[in-house]
Amino acid sequence: MGKVICAGLGPGDPDLMSVRSDRLVRSATHIAYFRKKGYEGQARRIVDGMIRPDAIEYPMDYPVTTEIAVTDPDYNRQLAAFYDGWAEKLALLAGTETVLVLCEGDPFFYGSFMHLYTRLMGRVPVEVIPGITGMSGCWTATGAPITWGDDVLTVLTATLSEEALAARARDTDALVVMKIGRNLGKLRRALATAGRLQDAWLVERGTMPDQRVHRLTEAPDKVPYFSICVVHGQGRRP
Amino acid sequence: MGKVICAGLGPGDPDLMSVRSDRLVRSATHIAYFRKKGYEGQARRIVDGMIRPDAIEYPMDYPVTTEIAVTDPDYNRQLAAFYDGWAEKLALLAGTETVLVLCEGDPFFYGSFMHLYTRLMGRVPVEVIPGITGMSGCWTATGAPITWGDDVLTVLTATLSEEALAARARDTDALVVMKIGRNLGKLRRALATAGRLQDAWLVERGTMPDQRVHRLTEAPDKVPYFSICVVHGQGRRP
Repeated sequence: MGKVICAGLGPGDPDLMSVRSDRLVRSATHIAYFRKKGYEGQARRIVDGMIRPDAIEYPMDYPVTTEIAVTDPDYNRQLAAFYDGWAEKLALLAGTETVLVLCEGDPFFYGSFMHLYTRLMGRVPVEVIPGITGMSGCWTATGAPITWGDDVLTVLTATLSEEALAARARDTDALVVMKIGRNLGKLRRALATAGRLQDAWLVERGTMPDQRVHRLTEAPDKVPYFSICVVHGQGRRP
Repeated sequence: MGKVICAGLGPGDPDLMSVRSDRLVRSATHIAYFRKKGYEGQARRIVDGMIRPDAIEYPMDYPVTTEIAVTDPDYNRQLAAFYDGWAEKLALLAGTETVLVLCEGDPFFYGSFMHLYTRLMGRVPVEVIPGITGMSGCWTATGAPITWGDDVLTVLTATLSEEALAARARDTDALVVMKIGRNLGKLRRALATAGRLQDAWLVERGTMPDQRVHRLTEAPDKVPYFSICVVHGQGRRP
């Protein structure tokens, strides 16, 4: 009997992958990964040049990403069918083989794999390897610590309402905002309302070759999906 | 001219170190690390058996950890002198050598290295390598994702007041609490007040050989420093 292993790949630089994930990526014979249809996919890109030439690849193309609102019942329906289908395929395959699922960042931190995980649990053995989060890669790229002493850190997605973003940005020491994309204008307004805009940084493609670090006020109006906003804590320091 | 490199070592399992940190640890000739006086130190323990036999080690013994309250001015004074002294020594050494500073977890996330970092900046080149955080290791150990969809994640230190802990635990989807130690009783009361106690997990020494995972209600009353409390988010899932 085989199993399913989900390897966290870290924030983007292959050198920031864990020793365990690195070893598994290089030896795997069955490799699955999520991607937006028509794209290579970030997880697959990270392992470029690392996988065995005879490895069998299973690209899992999301049926929908941002074409439908997440509040549309059809969004949930299409994604549920997608995860059901792939859970079925991977469970079958794991009857005899070890299947490696690639996941950028840390799989249990906003990762898509968790939707397969809940469907595979109890059917086949599943192992999850944590990874360096995208946010760790991004705050390291800003060259300043994110939390000091007793700082409170809040992690938000920019998909929240402007009011919720502003209230939470006001009520925390350190802040990380993920899933920015088309929510950038809303995020900027919310941070301005909270009085945190001047201290905010935007990191595009943290740790990747084309990484860019800006003050949020100076960032472009269009940013890639792999963008993270960081406001550093200013807590106690001897 | 040399430099100072701080290598994040991840949550404890050496296999979860990044490929880059692993390579640096194995090749370093000058290795510094923090530890409580009289103890081996967690960072040093992680690299046991990995370092060169001719590597020169610089254990940096904290002058104080929990013997004095952090609010006592003497606490700050002693630690400031300690960081000043080691920044001076490492800056001198980095005039000619590359010095590797070991740091468990992720250096810019509540790590002690940041106090050296601010003192070394502008004097010698400093490089920081992110690591898998202790909290990632701990939520992975619970076998359940920490955040789904638009979940808000709050990271707290149990050193906050009981009222602050309760208010913040009530007002978040997912929760991580660090620096528990002797604050365990207070944390339990705060989570009970917030109605989150039944959903809380305590992970002792996540990813280390003697890892233990308990429901917080069933955890022992004395827990080691490397203990983290986790309450999972329950957000949107297709």
